Amino acid sequence: MTTAGAHDCIPGQGDALLIVDVQNDFLPGGSLAVPQGDDVVPILNRYSSTFRTRHLPIFASRDWHPSNHCSFTEQNGPWPPHCVAETHGARFASGLNLTDATVISKATEPESDAYSAFENTDLDQRLKQAKVKRLFVGGLATDYCVLNSVRDAVRLNYSVVLLEDAIRAVSVQPEDGPRAIEEMLNLGCQPANVESVGLSSSPTPATLTDLYQLAMLKSYHDQGMNQTAVFEFYIRNLPDQRNFLMAAGLEQVLEYLESLQFTQQERDWMKHSGIFPADFVDSLKDFRFTGDVDALPEGTIFFSNEPVVRITAPLPQAQLAESRIINILQMQILTASKAARMVLTAPGKTLLDFGLRRAHGSEAGLFVARASYLAGFNGSATVSAKPLYGVPVFGTMAHSYIQAHSEESDAFKNFAHSWPDNTIFLLDTYDTLQAAHKVVALARDLKKEGISIHGVRLDSGDLAQLAKEVRSILDKGGLKNTRIFASGNLDEYALEQLIAQQAPIDGFGIGTRLAVSEDAPTLECVYKMQEYDGRPQRKRSEGKSTWPGKKQVFRTLDAKGKMQEDHLAIEDEPLSGEPLMKPYMCQGKRLNPPVPLEQLHKHAARQLDQLPKSLSSLKPAPAYPVHISQKIRELADHLDKS
Amino acid sequence: MTTAGAHDCIPGQGDALLIVDVQNDFLPGGSLAVPQGDDVVPILNRYSSTFRTRHLPIFASRDWHPSNHCSFTEQNGPWPPHCVAETHGARFASGLNLTDATVISKATEPESDAYSAFENTDLDQRLKQAKVKRLFVGGLATDYCVLNSVRDAVRLNYSVVLLEDAIRAVSVQPEDGPRAIEEMLNLGCQPANVESVGLSSSPTPATLTDLYQLAMLKSYHDQGMNQTAVFEFYIRNLPDQRNFLMAAGLEQVLEYLESLQFTQQERDWMKHSGIFPADFVDSLKDFRFTGDVDALPEGTIFFSNEPVVRITAPLPQAQLAESRIINILQMQILTASKAARMVLTAPGKTLLDFGLRRAHGSEAGLFVARASYLAGFNGSATVSAKPLYGVPVFGTMAHSYIQAHSEESDAFKNFAHSWPDNTIFLLDTYDTLQAAHKVVALARDLKKEGISIHGVRLDSGDLAQLAKEVRSILDKGGLKNTRIFASGNLDEYALEQLIAQQAPIDGFGIGTRLAVSEDAPTLECVYKMQEYDGRPQRKRSEGKSTWPGKKQVFRTLDAKGKMQEDHLAIEDEPLSGEPLMKPYMCQGKRLNPPVPLEQLHKHAARQLDQLPKSLSSLKPAPAYPVHISQKIRELADHLDKS
Repeated sequence: MTTAGAHDCIPGQGDALLIVDVQNDFLPGGSLAVPQGDDVVPILNRYSSTFRTRHLPIFASRDWHPSNHCSFTEQNGPWPPHCVAETHGARFASGLNLTDATVISKATEPESDAYSAFENTDLDQRLKQAKVKRLFVGGLATDYCVLNSVRDAVRLNYSVVLLEDAIRAVSVQPEDGPRAIEEMLNLGCQPANVESVGLSSSPTPATLTDLYQLAMLKSYHDQGMNQTAVFEFYIRNLPDQRNFLMAAGLEQVLEYLESLQFTQQERDWMKHSGIFPADFVDSLKDFRFTGDVDALPEGTIFFSNEPVVRITAPLPQAQLAESRIINILQMQILTASKAARMVLTAPGKTLLDFGLRRAHGSEAGLFVARASYLAGFNGSATVSAKPLYGVPVFGTMAHSYIQAHSEESDAFKNFAHSWPDNTIFLLDTYDTLQAAHKVVALARDLKKEGISIHGVRLDSGDLAQLAKEVRSILDKGGLKNTRIFASGNLDEYALEQLIAQQAPIDGFGIGTRLAVSEDAPTLECVYKMQEYDGRPQRKRSEGKSTWPGKKQVFRTLDAKGKMQEDHLAIEDEPLSGEPLMKPYMCQGKRLNPPVPLEQLHKHAARQLDQLPKSLSSLKPAPAYPVHISQKIRELADHLDKS
Repeated sequence: MTTAGAHDCIPGQGDALLIVDVQNDFLPGGSLAVPQGDDVVPILNRYSSTFRTRHLPIFASRDWHPSNHCSFTEQNGPWPPHCVAETHGARFASGLNLTDATVISKATEPESDAYSAFENTDLDQRLKQAKVKRLFVGGLATDYCVLNSVRDAVRLNYSVVLLEDAIRAVSVQPEDGPRAIEEMLNLGCQPANVESVGLSSSPTPATLTDLYQLAMLKSYHDQGMNQTAVFEFYIRNLPDQRNFLMAAGLEQVLEYLESLQFTQQERDWMKHSGIFPADFVDSLKDFRFTGDVDALPEGTIFFSNEPVVRITAPLPQAQLAESRIINILQMQILTASKAARMVLTAPGKTLLDFGLRRAHGSEAGLFVARASYLAGFNGSATVSAKPLYGVPVFGTMAHSYIQAHSEESDAFKNFAHSWPDNTIFLLDTYDTLQAAHKVVALARDLKKEGISIHGVRLDSGDLAQLAKEVRSILDKGGLKNTRIFASGNLDEYALEQLIAQQAPIDGFGIGTRLAVSEDAPTLECVYKMQEYDGRPQRKRSEGKSTWPGKKQVFRTLDAKGKMQEDHLAIEDEPLSGEPLMKPYMCQGKRLNPPVPLEQLHKHAARQLDQLPKSLSSLKPAPAYPVHISQKIRELADHLDKS
């Protein structure tokens, strides 16, 4: 084993996840409860999300006993009856996301017991078919079914990564749990946890919300108000500088909802804080999101009043999530929409996000990388956007690199030696045109070494004029294939101008004005209750009234395939046109694996193709027609009168 | 032990941190190296930062042997010579932050050995003096000095929290480590890790940076360019809508630098990515920040060209940190400065941050809570801003709460029953004035139950007019003490107008326009190299040139204590006035514990008091005089000519 591989537990080709027996009977309240067994559910969801995103196989084993199983005390076995096939106790934990998982049932016959997921099952065969070499194992219980599955896996020559934060022990004897772990480590299992396995971002704390959400939750708790509520996220009015908006951020909303829980430490803090009574805090222990999510696919173009995401869930869940849902969606919609304008303005040009430093905090930096790529950019400078989202990343040098060398030419040369395939030199530290001449001179030497100069970057001054002069210097110097990149306070208006001036610039790095959506840094976005307990709702606050009911958007295209008009209607109204809202989550579980960003990027491109010319222009256009259906209007009237 | 306390390991009164023997000889390369012993350093820094922030005691034990110590092989002891007093090997790990820690030396005599930090030391006595009941223990090595210290601690009746992610075992026999942990858990130690102990935010990944930083780092690595560089963060020009800016975000910069490292998983990913060669990635294993930080105290008012933060460090360290430093500082300066304008505009009014949802992502939401409180706000609605930063939090109800009830009055009443001390009712869901009458009617019933109505909130419509009418309804209804709060698209201009209209509003919730600093969502902030290897540097890019050298700001006040003028000078120039830049970190270690936010809040208030009238107005004022010293100008001329 190489040093490099010794601690490598990032899931990749040849890896699979095995979730052992996370069934109701093994959870607190079940007939054979593992203490704190339910703690593993959200953690396993994080692992499975990582495996799913990477298209790696997921297996979930389960005890699936007949009612007269030999392990039950009635048959003189060691355990109380548990996991009887088809009963509630045998079902997987309700919050466990098993989308795309293969279920392995074991100990299905009265006379045969099986702690190991391999025992009398086709797990080994399936793993071999899928060319799996390494198993990541978590689940219940450490000292029985996990231990025995791991023993078999090792015996069958699989490498095993033991997910230490996703297992819990029965510990009939207190040392059973630690002993089982010790045995597994001695067998050569590699210990790991979410930190070491996932590069995915940490789950959002449930307390990253407004205090009023928790204040309301306590009141709902006191009153037992737990009926289904419907909330929709939409934008009241488009900013003046936007003819359309692009949906983005849904994947992060789904991740948030999947992992939503008040951790032990949050509950401890809440009790200590003096703000919340203990019984209310205790009631939050089992708080999970068990509702439905319908939404516009990311990359879809939308307009004012059209729902982007709808949450249908017990009132406290739908309520708590408000702050974070808006927080995620606004930022990504803003930057996807801003980026889309640049994509439309500069067809054929390379567009890169340089916005991390001027974005508002770390998450904003990552969101702008994701949303701009989704909208059609070619990549980002932000390194961690690649492992997190799969955004292609690019980058070469800053002015300080040039300054740290006594001679600008030496800086270029040294860089070319370090990065012979990534030779893009920054020209404007001292004098752009002089630097261009230095590049030409250097190119001859580098050519002898087999290194060609891919590009140069301009970061200040009159970019159009400088690009023309630099192009001419490069061309005369025989560097016709050396591309010119530009950066520095760019946005769609600057791009439009540079293109009008026929500046010979091949690609652009866009930072500040993209990262904060400078000409429209916020949206009038809201998340409003449309129904509670079957009753449609309407808020009538001055200037902030809402359209009631559970809605759908129907879009019609014209003969040329361009968007013609949208109808905002009640979900079940029989209107023509394509219904844009799709189901994404049902009862807290995803209906499909996350859509790869690459695929969303393509969907967004198709959407931009459907824009009528007036909307794709940077000039403010007449509003795209979004008709409010008769049924919605009638409902609103009815509510106003009642 | 109650259930509530069973898993409570949040450090508080009665808790102390014990860092066992994190000394060079126990680190890789040392004479008695513990495998991966250096991994505990950044993790222990996170723990100690939490304890320091909460003013809880920190102890650090060390072996401090004479050169003829009985444990050494030469004296027939079991170990090679190690930790000989006053030698490099006995020194604490260079990256370990021991600010405010009490050092406990042990085994200082030739004939006595001591694995335990309690053995022949005054540790027990010191703990008892400090009224410590519970010890959080981490360090080296799990199976020797940690184990023995824990045994003694338990024997002496301390509760022990074992920091499982901050210990590493020698494991002469492979099972020694797991066995030691098992023994400690059997002794009743509570296992914990950074997730369960700290509510502090996760450290920033080192790869949350621009790719060009890493590209340059490889080139510096190839060339051995590791000399000291000086970078300064400053703002080129103030936005038109700002007469001054307020420093903020330094604490997060220091936390970032303290914890900066490429984790194993980041390095694994980097190798897999195909972007970076393995030898370069391996060279990043020991990458830590070992430089100096000088800065303006948070809450200090500053102007264009004045350095806010200066980093003096080996070039690769100073370079890598650029992206994140700007990312942190810009956002907090923006929102502190915007909030300060509101504080100046609405003296005596309660000001609350409602900005989480419209902030750009999660960190921005937290930063706006912190920065606005720093600048003089009274608190925030964002719950996690309290455990993270100590920001007071406030909140009651949303429109959806009212809507979920069939009757608005029932909603008010139910809320009052759930939160009898937090009765602030939202009036504008349907009809503000009608709702005010309902509040008056309800007040009589609630009074019988001993509940009084603290306030009402208006969130839409003509706030000045509605506030007057509501005030009148409340006053006539005998609710003279019920306060009126307002929210909804507010900013300093709206506050100014409402105050001019004498709107009887006692407090304001400020969201969107604060959270993104809407009229100036970015700053022309840069982080530029001023010196490398002793040579002053100057960039001359068109419109982006820099003043060279390591600088200080000297501020003069007038007779009335108001700011008169600043001088930007080379650090050692003998100018009069108060030097504003202070040292915060030296060789990677903090010089002082973090300043409590409360104290920064007071410093900011004093700074705002020093503003001359023209600058504290919302109207654009003539620029405050910032003089560039003769020495800086001469240096710039000299560099331009050379």
